[in-house]
Amino acid sequence: MAPSLVVNGDFATVGPASTAGRLASVYSEVQSSRIDQPLPLPSVLKNPFKIVDGPPSSAAGNPDEIAKLFPNLFGQPSAMLVPSAEGSIQSDQKLKIGVVLSGGQAPGGHNVICGIFDYLQDYVKGSTLYGFKGGPAGIMRCKYVELTAEYIHPYRNQLIHLFIANQGGFDMICSGRDKIETPEQFKQAEETVLKLDLDGLLVIGGDDSNTNACLLAENFRGKNMKTRVIGCPKTIDGDLKSKEVPTSFGFDTACKIYAEMIGNVMIDARSTGKYYHFVRLMGRAASHITLECALQTHPNISIIGEEVAAKKQTLKNITDYIVNVILKRAELGYNYGVILIPEGLIDFIPEVQYLIAELNEILAHDIIDENGLWKKKLTDQSLKLFEFLPRAIQEQLLLERDPHGNVQVAKIETEKMLIQMVETELKKKQQEGLYKGPFMGQSHFFGYEGRCGLPTNFDATYCYALGYAAGALLQSGKTGLISSVGNLAAPVEQWTASGTALTSLMDVERRHGKFKPVIKKAMVELEGAPFKKFASMRDEWAFKNRYISPGPIQFVGPTSNAVNHTLLLELGAVQS
Amino acid sequence: MAPSLVVNGDFATVGPASTAGRLASVYSEVQSSRIDQPLPLPSVLKNPFKIVDGPPSSAAGNPDEIAKLFPNLFGQPSAMLVPSAEGSIQSDQKLKIGVVLSGGQAPGGHNVICGIFDYLQDYVKGSTLYGFKGGPAGIMRCKYVELTAEYIHPYRNQLIHLFIANQGGFDMICSGRDKIETPEQFKQAEETVLKLDLDGLLVIGGDDSNTNACLLAENFRGKNMKTRVIGCPKTIDGDLKSKEVPTSFGFDTACKIYAEMIGNVMIDARSTGKYYHFVRLMGRAASHITLECALQTHPNISIIGEEVAAKKQTLKNITDYIVNVILKRAELGYNYGVILIPEGLIDFIPEVQYLIAELNEILAHDIIDENGLWKKKLTDQSLKLFEFLPRAIQEQLLLERDPHGNVQVAKIETEKMLIQMVETELKKKQQEGLYKGPFMGQSHFFGYEGRCGLPTNFDATYCYALGYAAGALLQSGKTGLISSVGNLAAPVEQWTASGTALTSLMDVERRHGKFKPVIKKAMVELEGAPFKKFASMRDEWAFKNRYISPGPIQFVGPTSNAVNHTLLLELGAVQS
Repeated sequence: MAPSLVVNGDFATVGPASTAGRLASVYSEVQSSRIDQPLPLPSVLKNPFKIVDGPPSSAAGNPDEIAKLFPNLFGQPSAMLVPSAEGSIQSDQKLKIGVVLSGGQAPGGHNVICGIFDYLQDYVKGSTLYGFKGGPAGIMRCKYVELTAEYIHPYRNQLIHLFIANQGGFDMICSGRDKIETPEQFKQAEETVLKLDLDGLLVIGGDDSNTNACLLAENFRGKNMKTRVIGCPKTIDGDLKSKEVPTSFGFDTACKIYAEMIGNVMIDARSTGKYYHFVRLMGRAASHITLECALQTHPNISIIGEEVAAKKQTLKNITDYIVNVILKRAELGYNYGVILIPEGLIDFIPEVQYLIAELNEILAHDIIDENGLWKKKLTDQSLKLFEFLPRAIQEQLLLERDPHGNVQVAKIETEKMLIQMVETELKKKQQEGLYKGPFMGQSHFFGYEGRCGLPTNFDATYCYALGYAAGALLQSGKTGLISSVGNLAAPVEQWTASGTALTSLMDVERRHGKFKPVIKKAMVELEGAPFKKFASMRDEWAFKNRYISPGPIQFVGPTSNAVNHTLLLELGAVQS
Repeated sequence: MAPSLVVNGDFATVGPASTAGRLASVYSEVQSSRIDQPLPLPSVLKNPFKIVDGPPSSAAGNPDEIAKLFPNLFGQPSAMLVPSAEGSIQSDQKLKIGVVLSGGQAPGGHNVICGIFDYLQDYVKGSTLYGFKGGPAGIMRCKYVELTAEYIHPYRNQLIHLFIANQGGFDMICSGRDKIETPEQFKQAEETVLKLDLDGLLVIGGDDSNTNACLLAENFRGKNMKTRVIGCPKTIDGDLKSKEVPTSFGFDTACKIYAEMIGNVMIDARSTGKYYHFVRLMGRAASHITLECALQTHPNISIIGEEVAAKKQTLKNITDYIVNVILKRAELGYNYGVILIPEGLIDFIPEVQYLIAELNEILAHDIIDENGLWKKKLTDQSLKLFEFLPRAIQEQLLLERDPHGNVQVAKIETEKMLIQMVETELKKKQQEGLYKGPFMGQSHFFGYEGRCGLPTNFDATYCYALGYAAGALLQSGKTGLISSVGNLAAPVEQWTASGTALTSLMDVERRHGKFKPVIKKAMVELEGAPFKKFASMRDEWAFKNRYISPGPIQFVGPTSNAVNHTLLLELGAVQS
């Protein structure tokens, strides 16, 4: 890694001289090959362009409240980059720009930084790019590293992105989960941008981080500070999107990594013929990842949290559904299968939420006696659910608490819980003579291994364009927008680039008696094309074993440019 | 899949007519692209060849006993395929050959079958290939499917391997774990090969299956039956190898799949900077997979079972080693890391074996009283170990038993156990003021997802050559050999092909007062090049974060033909 770009101590002593040897020892062959991968730009970014404003925007909900919260930014139009005969923005003014990664990793983050870096190189030579270290805390504490062209110069003639492009992870400047929330923290951020004399700040993050970006933009604008703020949509969960922002980066790569593993497990299931694999997939708030993986691999069962919530399903309902599929498959001679479960399943089940609320109340005020008298404090419904849970889960609910004394829902291994519940029900069916078995459950959690893979060609190119477009927006004085690259089903040349008013994605939530702005998470739409496609196929997949093994992500050749099903279906680019 | 080759009911009704449409719906883009991948053959198999016998062989140990157990086969020479000016074996005699997959899946199995099928097509036209279904049980019950050229004919002009080559899994004819052991079972096997009039049988399996293949060969030869038996080295664990059999197929693919995941987790660890990832890897008897993954990815810690056993390490030793690395890393500012653990670790720790033996004894005869009086029956050493174990593991040892009432060692999640033990020790260090933390452990098990991936180009080509060579050996009347393809560090054209006497790989074990022949599992050699390379690097990897992210397996381009480190080091093809 180029020392200029790296904060981890272990590379700090490496000078440019030892680069070549260094490269071989820090990069695998595939990583090295990725450095050569060209990063095509949409033609609108390659040629002279100007920025055209659209009509005034509103908000995703409660526009009056959003207007009050963002008096300086509310109603901003979108800003579209269009070809310009007169040439691009001409300005001799060099820029000072900061960039920050916020929240969990998503493959492609480094390429966003490459994109803005190259924009500055190509259009505003002599500009400075700072990388804030360790997320928003880096802004507040003014901890940064200079990603300067000057320092990079020795490598420039070889390959500008020698050390960074197309690599997974966020280790270039690291990320963090801190938020800039309190007046003091806003003050710290102000001090930092004043100290560094920043013209702009690029915030790469999820819904919270982009809300935060907009609050910063509003604050700076309100104080007549010159610092503009542009956001960038990052999250593997795929739940930061809108009409203008077709997808968040990282989703494509993460789903393909999980789908590879699922496909392998499917072939194993079929070859062995004796395991039911219960696969829990990352994605707490929304089930986009599970849905996309289902569309890619055709598992026998996929539980979609949003459907569970909409139909107010209980854990018993879900267990029964799985058990019924297993019974019917056994009749067909299949005692194996693959079942996908979203990480956040439990949060979607209303009765579980009630039980947990009641347990938190009881744990806070009562003693959990061994004779179970405490259970009398549960409502009938919650008691019934509690008794239905496997013993290990019961104990976990009672024993493991977070620092506030609350039940640790996140620690529940849903896939293991479901295996136990299914096993119990199947034993009953066996006693009733309705099932002969055998049933063997295998649990999997595919999580961290999907967040930091090498980005797919799609994510790599998408991120580069997002970063490049963010540079254009910042240079043209825009603030409070999120970088938006569209027309993604078309070839890259035809992709569009624009900025969308962050306030237009917002609604308010009431917290502690106050309205708080939030970018609403985009949930799986039960009326949307991806879910409808899944719903139309799931019975066939349940009983006819239509397993597909997507195989490992390819970076070259005809299979390297596939785009995920969710995006293509949402764009109407394939039949649903 | 071609109906002729498939036993799963769901494809049974598909006729050749609907092939094209069917293909699109059962194969992913990458799978489809694999079908076009050429399968190069070693030049010795492409041109006229003859078979030259080597010198008489002996056994890996106790040759006298092996000679007694294999009176007809012991001492057989190896059979080497060499170029022949006079042309290849000429014979009009069509062959009837059976093929069986035995034991766990390994990527590439289908290609072995393609290899022998093509050999028959190329050299003994009109021959018949039967696939026994569901492993050795298929032989005993005479359940098979005919993999005939005639049936495949409609596809032949398109692509001979249209439906099978380069695909992971064993779903073509499925596998099974049954053994042919008792006199009745040998009788059944005889009946089957007589009924089908088999000239030869190809057994694709691990050490047990190849031992079994040799017993069948001996049995058939002893009864003057014409059926020859050839084995083929399969196991992702990599523990079936010798001087003549440089590697077992599947190891290359499995390690690369695991290494991809480990590499991703490493980048996540470094980007987040707050997790210690404990990764358990498949491989019960030997630690080759863990060692190979370490060589590919450079984790901070890798536990190699063979070293643990050789140094008679205790669980406390291992815990202390991990804790010390964590303490030293904390001083360097790193509160994250990646630790690899072989699935079979517990089996390598002598004290754990003693404890489990004592527990089994106690569980069989005593009552586990709540006051813990039963513990007095443990030896001091075992008691000390038991008390050292985390409570959850203690409970698991006492509560979960197999049908024979024994402790279920295989069910222990070693990675979680180590996290708990490390956590406990770190808390002590914290209280002593020697460690500030924080420590957050994340557990992973990478297992099933590595057994059925699409085979790497190496495994695909290696398997095809193994199958093709097996055809040549069977046609030339050889029996009791294992197909052996060598010179693997050279280009494929220069690979060698031969058959190695299975008896030469054998030793005896005493079971129930009798000598039983066994192919000794090849363990990680502490004096071998791969371990020595690892041992020379591990301190640097522990503290200097030399993480490498191998990325996903590539099938085209310059990075698609890399061979695993273990093989290259063992062949002396790279510096150790």
